[in-house]
This record gives sequence, structure tokens and C-alpha cells, in this order.
Amino acid sequence: MIEDFWAVVPAGGAGTRLWPLSRAGSPKFLRDLRGTGRSLLQETHDRLAPLAGERIVVVTGAAHAAAVADQLGDLPAGAILAEPSARDSMAAIGLAAALLERRHPDAVMGSFAADHVITDAEAFGAAVRTAVDVAREGWLVTLGIEPTFPSSAFGYIRSGDALPGHPGAQHVAAFVEKPSVEVATGYLAEGGYRWNAGMFVVRPGVLLDLLAQWHPRFAESLRAIAADPGSLERVWPSLPRIALDHAVAEPAAEAGRVATVPAAFDWDDIGDFDSLAELLGRDGEQPLVVLGDDDAVRVVDASGLVVTGGRTVAVVGLQDVVVVDTPDALLVTTRARAQDVKAVVAGLKESGRDDLV
Amino acid sequence: MIEDFWAVVPAGGAGTRLWPLSRAGSPKFLRDLRGTGRSLLQETHDRLAPLAGERIVVVTGAAHAAAVADQLGDLPAGAILAEPSARDSMAAIGLAAALLERRHPDAVMGSFAADHVITDAEAFGAAVRTAVDVAREGWLVTLGIEPTFPSSAFGYIRSGDALPGHPGAQHVAAFVEKPSVEVATGYLAEGGYRWNAGMFVVRPGVLLDLLAQWHPRFAESLRAIAADPGSLERVWPSLPRIALDHAVAEPAAEAGRVATVPAAFDWDDIGDFDSLAELLGRDGEQPLVVLGDDDAVRVVDASGLVVTGGRTVAVVGLQDVVVVDTPDALLVTTRARAQDVKAVVAGLKESGRDDLV
Repeated sequence: MIEDFWAVVPAGGAGTRLWPLSRAGSPKFLRDLRGTGRSLLQETHDRLAPLAGERIVVVTGAAHAAAVADQLGDLPAGAILAEPSARDSMAAIGLAAALLERRHPDAVMGSFAADHVITDAEAFGAAVRTAVDVAREGWLVTLGIEPTFPSSAFGYIRSGDALPGHPGAQHVAAFVEKPSVEVATGYLAEGGYRWNAGMFVVRPGVLLDLLAQWHPRFAESLRAIAADPGSLERVWPSLPRIALDHAVAEPAAEAGRVATVPAAFDWDDIGDFDSLAELLGRDGEQPLVVLGDDDAVRVVDASGLVVTGGRTVAVVGLQDVVVVDTPDALLVTTRARAQDVKAVVAGLKESGRDDLV
Repeated sequence: MIEDFWAVVPAGGAGTRLWPLSRAGSPKFLRDLRGTGRSLLQETHDRLAPLAGERIVVVTGAAHAAAVADQLGDLPAGAILAEPSARDSMAAIGLAAALLERRHPDAVMGSFAADHVITDAEAFGAAVRTAVDVAREGWLVTLGIEPTFPSSAFGYIRSGDALPGHPGAQHVAAFVEKPSVEVATGYLAEGGYRWNAGMFVVRPGVLLDLLAQWHPRFAESLRAIAADPGSLERVWPSLPRIALDHAVAEPAAEAGRVATVPAAFDWDDIGDFDSLAELLGRDGEQPLVVLGDDDAVRVVDASGLVVTGGRTVAVVGLQDVVVVDTPDALLVTTRARAQDVKAVVAGLKESGRDDLV
């Protein structure tokens, strides 16, 4: 347990590129994507409980609050913050920050998405502990994941000078947008770059003060809601739709206010079926991995990923294929084209098939 | 109408390579594989009725007799011969021949599988008329389809000398087993080769006399059943499992007893999903053809064939793919690997999943 440490878990995002497994009504974080019997949200909670105990706050859409409560079981009052509508991560995390700032002046908060996979809980805990130590001194701290391959799917953190008094911790020189594989290969060769997993540790007041520097009315609105929770429904729709990275982290890095703590644990945001296949295939030798019922899958000279949905699935003569079976929709693609699944979802929305997305 | 012409329609074969669309309990010939609203059996009947009127006999497994009767509507008595068990094509066609020989001594019969596709009914009728003329003189006549590409999926007929008195008709020099594409390419360059579509026209007595030359007990058993139809159940299981091609056509060709009539109509036996895709894609420009509900299919940069089964099917970034959706089983393969679908069926049988095959 880390003293005064509060875990904030933004649970949002439709996981469009994981359609038809992930849907607006049944998003990624509520799903058991690893075949462990626990949803990503539950695994996130399991990972944070040893560090924060009951000081865990889940921020989620009003539509999902009941499902979150159901999955997490007995929670203390106030453990779920229901957003009246989706306003992106700055509003979600900022709301939790404003409430914590007012109610727990000594809190240090850490923000951890509900739909990421981290299997090494010990290394995760160690990194968070270090980050909390640094954050207590007023830094906005981000966990920098040691890259294991030149991914073009993640943003990168470029580290600067070492941070005195905290072995391993460094200034953040800049946040870098998702690069090409070529550029990412250069980053790995050069060194000093880590994956930005969007995990921030900070004192709530520090976060809001930083926000106030670039978006003063935004910070003011969040603090007004905390002072008068009854105003949430009224004020919320006026909040900007902006990610915390853009609203605070990037300008704060330029201003020299962000530190990073290195983290060497396995991490994945399972952004698409390619990364899900990678994740599920990690330990095994089998060329085709199955999420669901192994016995339902018949493979003849094929590799890739099959997600079962209750029926027999036969795959013949296709390499790196992705087959996702659900009761009302079926996806067939390849690992290489996994990102393009979002085009299907966009098409379904355009033609009014909201029942399927 | 062709005088004294009887059409015999063997309706059998599970269509294993069309799994999961075709099943033992719901075989290919009962399915509407062209999206016309008529099953292959119904289309075969439609094609034969102008030539044979009510003189059409369907030979099918006892399990399918009711479905056949249902699809074909009002039929005269004896129009469906139910085989107690599957004994291959010689027994099926031989049974019809033995009954016709006894009841209609002047009959000329033509045998046409229930699951082939022929769209040019006029050219088909003309070829059958010519074949009947030749068959009246005692020949076993086979329709030789003009090949349009060097197929390795069909057997070939090598023609010999012209048949005097029947312009276009020729002796059959030999039947040739399915060749490689290279060999087939040579056949097309050389000329004188036609596809063997297994369509035979012959006087029933001639067929049985030919059979008696190489399989005397087989012919005797068939004639015994015709003399005493009550013996069918008892005698049937003793009949050899052999195709008419091997039992009669091949040795008769060697003996100079087989003639061929050229036929230039489009013909396909839809042996697998590759040929189904070819057939359905013939008129269209669209790279991905759909059998079923077009609106249920979402395509992003893909080509091939999708058979819908009630759900939305999205295909992203795959060329020449085959996706077949049914309520209890799903197949994903490629046109090039369509033949290997039989391995899936074999595997399901091996593991006792007869409910799926």
C-alpha cells in the first residue's frame, strides 16, 4: 500500500478497432480479452488494489456505471464517477483530480486506463512507488515503458536530464507522436526513448494548476464541479473534448514540468486484433491462437487469431488471419490490416446500423 | 419433347467440399447455390421437363426422398426412386435403367446429375436430342463439353473418328482422369478433348448389357430387382459401390462402344467454393460476390466469395477469400484452398461431430 495514493481509472473508449468483439454497449474494458476469466477492468483493479487499497476511483460513462459496479463488486461510496457524456480524458481525469484535491489535500493520484494489459504486477508496483515519490515534489510524472520493438502504434517519450535525488527518474524533454516504424527503429537505436502508456502520477492540485496555465476556464469548471457536485450535469457539457496529453502533458513538458520514471514491465493497450494476437500468442508455439473455446476451432494449415462466439469455426489455408465470431456479426481480416477494422465501424455508423457498433 | 426419352436424375453426394453450406442432411442438390430462388435439383428438373415431360425419375437416398418430393411438387407415381443406402452412381442409374427396360422397352434414357449448373437450356436440349438419336442405334453416348479453360477439376473425353450419319458425333477413344493444369493445357492446344460431365444417354437395355459384360452379377441383380421390386431392400446392400464411369463407360470406350456428342453450353458441377465463386462472379464486375443477403456484407478492400447466413459479415483486406456463414458453423478459406475444405469435414467426422457434417 502506498500512503495517500489514489488510483484513478478512466474506463472509456469503444475499442472501435476491436469490433465486433468490442461494442459501444459492451466496450473493451468490460471484456475478458485474455481468456483469464477476468475483464481488463477487473485485472486493472486487481493490479491497483495492493497499491491503493480502497482508494480507487473509476471514471466511466453513465451508460457503463452499472456494468462497472457489477464487475467490481462491493465498492465504497463515490468509487465510480459517472460522466454524463464522453468528453475525452482531460475531463474524466480532471474531474477525479478536482474531487480529490478538495477532499484529500495530501493525495497523490495515478491515472491508469481500464483497458491496458500489464502482467508483471510487481514491476508495475515498483514503478508506481517511484513515480509517487517524484510526484510528491510537484512533478507531473509519466511512466515510460522500455520499448521492446519499434512500434508505430504508440507515442514515445524522449527523456532529458536525470532528476536529482531520484535514481532512474529523468526530465521529459518531449512527447513524440506515433512515429513510422523506420523512425521508431531510429529511436531504439539512439536510446532515450520510451513508450508513452498514458500513465500519469501527480498531485491533483498540481495537475489542475498546470491545466489552468493553458486552459484556465477548463480548470475553473472542474474545480466548480468539485465545490458543487450538483452542478455536474449542467457544467459538464461545456468542457472541452481534449486528451490530457494535449491539454497538459505536452505543454508542461515544454515548460520543463514533467518527469518520467522508467518501467520495464510488459505493457499493451490491445489497440487492435494484431496486438491481441501478439499478446495471446506470447507463450505458445501454436501458429493460430484462440480466444474462447479451443475445441470449436478447426485449423488446416492456418495461422493467426480466432475469437469464438459459440459456433464451430474452420480456417483453411490462410496465414495471419483474424476471424472474430459473435452472435450478430462476423469479422474476417488479417493481422496486417487490423487497423482498418475501424472503416467497417465507420461504414456501419454511416448507414445507420448503430445496433451493430 | 423427345419421344420415348426418359430423364434419370441421380440426386446424391454430400458436396463435402461445399461444407458448411452443404451437409449430409441438406446436400448441395437441395440448395439454391445460384441465388435464383430455385435449388439445383429444381433447376435440373426445369431444364429436363421440356425434353422429357413427366418422364423424369429422380434416384436419391431414402433420407432425401421427402425433401425431393417437396421441392418438385406434384410428381407421377414412381418418379422418385429411394435408394436404401448409398451405392454410388452405377447402382443408382442402373436401378432406373432396369425398371425402364422392363416397363418401357422403347425408352432411351439420359442421366443428368441433380447438382450441375447449365444455363443455356436451348443448347442443352439440342445436344440431348442429338445424343438420343445416336443412342437409339445402340451406342452409349456421352455429352462432351467444349472446355473453356484447362481445368484440373474435371475428367476429359478424348474423341476418335467421326460417327457416320451423325454430324458432329464421334467415337470416344478414351476417358481420361482429371489431369494436371499443364496436361490439360496440352489437351486444349492439341484439340479433340472435351470435359466429361458424366451425362450419359443410352437405351436401358444397352447399358445393362454393357454392364453385364464386365459385371455380370451386378446387371443380374439390377434386373432381378426390376422383376421383383419387393426384393430391393434385400438385394441392394449386395450391389458394388462403383461409379458408372468405371463400371461401364471406360471399358465400353475401350471396346469401341461409346460415342460422344459435342456440347458447347456453359456447364459446372460446382465442386467447391472456388467454382461457386467463379459461377456467381461471371456476369458481375464486383470483386467480391455474395450468395445470400448483399446488405449483410461489409467489404473493405477484399475480393472473393461470401455466403451469408443471417449475420453481418465484414471482410477487410483479403483477396480471393471464401467466407461461409451458417447458424452453427463458419468456414474461412481462400479460393485456391477450396479443395481442402474436405479435410475439415474429415476431421469433424473423426472426432465424432456428425452433427456438423
